[in-house]
Amino acid sequence: MNILKYETVSLDENEKALLILDQTKLPAQVNILHLTEIHDIHNAIYTLQVRGAPAIGIAAAFGLYLEALKIDAQDSPSFLAKLRQAKDYLNSARPTAVNLSWALNRMYNSVNVSMSIPEIREILRLEALAIKSEDTETCRRIGEYGLTLIHDGDGILTHCNAGQLATSKYGTALAPIHLGRERGMNFHVYCDETRPLLQGARLSAFELMADGVDTTLICDNMAAQVMKEGRVRAVFVGCDRAASNGDCCNKIGTSGLAVIAKHYGIPFYVFCPVSTVDMNIKTGSEIVIEQRKPEEITEMWYSKRMAPDNVNVYNPAFDVTDHELITGIVTEYGIALPPFTESLKTITNANQAHCLR
Amino acid sequence: MNILKYETVSLDENEKALLILDQTKLPAQVNILHLTEIHDIHNAIYTLQVRGAPAIGIAAAFGLYLEALKIDAQDSPSFLAKLRQAKDYLNSARPTAVNLSWALNRMYNSVNVSMSIPEIREILRLEALAIKSEDTETCRRIGEYGLTLIHDGDGILTHCNAGQLATSKYGTALAPIHLGRERGMNFHVYCDETRPLLQGARLSAFELMADGVDTTLICDNMAAQVMKEGRVRAVFVGCDRAASNGDCCNKIGTSGLAVIAKHYGIPFYVFCPVSTVDMNIKTGSEIVIEQRKPEEITEMWYSKRMAPDNVNVYNPAFDVTDHELITGIVTEYGIALPPFTESLKTITNANQAHCLR
Repeated sequence: MNILKYETVSLDENEKALLILDQTKLPAQVNILHLTEIHDIHNAIYTLQVRGAPAIGIAAAFGLYLEALKIDAQDSPSFLAKLRQAKDYLNSARPTAVNLSWALNRMYNSVNVSMSIPEIREILRLEALAIKSEDTETCRRIGEYGLTLIHDGDGILTHCNAGQLATSKYGTALAPIHLGRERGMNFHVYCDETRPLLQGARLSAFELMADGVDTTLICDNMAAQVMKEGRVRAVFVGCDRAASNGDCCNKIGTSGLAVIAKHYGIPFYVFCPVSTVDMNIKTGSEIVIEQRKPEEITEMWYSKRMAPDNVNVYNPAFDVTDHELITGIVTEYGIALPPFTESLKTITNANQAHCLR
Repeated sequence: MNILKYETVSLDENEKALLILDQTKLPAQVNILHLTEIHDIHNAIYTLQVRGAPAIGIAAAFGLYLEALKIDAQDSPSFLAKLRQAKDYLNSARPTAVNLSWALNRMYNSVNVSMSIPEIREILRLEALAIKSEDTETCRRIGEYGLTLIHDGDGILTHCNAGQLATSKYGTALAPIHLGRERGMNFHVYCDETRPLLQGARLSAFELMADGVDTTLICDNMAAQVMKEGRVRAVFVGCDRAASNGDCCNKIGTSGLAVIAKHYGIPFYVFCPVSTVDMNIKTGSEIVIEQRKPEEITEMWYSKRMAPDNVNVYNPAFDVTDHELITGIVTEYGIALPPFTESLKTITNANQAHCLR
């Protein structure tokens, strides 16, 4: 099995359904969902059947296109009003990842009232496909930059899943690992299991092993020991939203890892497409942290209750890593180094120049 | 329900069986095991039906006494030879906690060949009962010292279970919380769930809620966020073995918490009876870290597989917190402060003076 042949998120052959590799069933089952209804697509994002900031953006873009095929309207203005409602509805599925609103706004802004309804639908189709293919190219470029940071055989620690399953292909934090495999390299990757939803145990360990990578699973609280023992050369994590000062919001547990990595002198890299950098916010303190259901913690992936009834639970899904703890932010336009306020500005300008070409 | 009326480990009324509150069944069931066979007692320690360094020591002491009732020998030397075998066997159940060997050696050294076999049995009975009652008094005194560090209403973060369920009564890290409750105080305790075996979710949350304490459960990787948000005034953890320089071995995840607490300027206290201080080792690097089965991580408390088949797993059960990360070590003879090489010597000398009285 080669993980790189699976599609995390795609349109079916007839372009009438969204296909999602159901990540809540991994690693036990490889199950492809065929979704056509906007409510099911919203639900797939909310319940994490598709997750990872770039993959969510792609799923939402395809979802908005599929909804556009169904919208019944007399003229373009009323069509666009309904499209806007659909966009706002899909945008409500997850609060933290900037890619969701980024992709939906890009879709919505690609069309206007001067177009006929068939033209609008065609533009939306092309825009969604472009969002996906650009993501693959972005991940490949991020992987190339990431590969410059490590050597064949290195130990790498990662958290959650910022891999192929979080994107269209390759992933972000795991892109260098997969690209390296294509070139005959191998790395020893330690995967934090990533409580409560175990994206590290279920997803990163799955996709890395499927690609033949030497993979070791640990509990989140073992990362300090792995670092202390000198088992890893670097920590590679993804990002759900970066602020213009370099503060990075990512899966809960990331900021603690960064503190520990700094203590042990281990480089800490955040992998982050430019679409994930939100230059409209100055610091990470402006990012809303999604709070999720207590049962995610108390019922162990909903199988068996492992905590007292009625116990209070605090369940933030993300945290913000202070920019001072980050060695570099790896994007498709290069590796931003401190001071991030400057380097991220340069990189996002490069992105805008590219988009204007 | 008042948790403080449960016995974690005790002899039955007739002093013919060891009673253990089965901690593998909590919080779903409160189930008391009646054990009479040394193999079952060894197994209860190995499988964590009884766990926590002091409770293990007490269980082993009672276990050795119960075995002494069964040893068939012609004379005291051959009786003691068999007793030694039993001691070594029980000592093999867990490698890390110093209390196991400490309690067994104390039992064994309390008797000698000049005694008759009935005398040996009676001495062993009294010694085991003394180990238990001294533990309760030790925990109460540790709790008194701990209470001097906090104020009514404070938030406290704890890891694993260093509570009543780890000792005969009160616990060590949780002793101030329980003692405070007896005096009408309340604290807000954040419990790390403590993967892989969830002693925080299953045991600490259970015993704190049973004592009416305001308790919030978090995943281990959320502790950094809780500290960053200023929700806790201090971190209180237990200890499985302390070295003479103050390095403290405790449940895996403790050292990472200490690094994070230092980063956020939050005091980090280790609670540790003097019996847990091993003055024979200079630093924590001399402590053997127990490695446990991969299935503890991959099969989620043995209910459902949550990681790919055949994934490598690294599963150290403990880690060592560097003494430089520790604010103070709270013992029954006072709070040792840095430099620990000096303060622990003073405290263990106080203990020896006490024992000689």
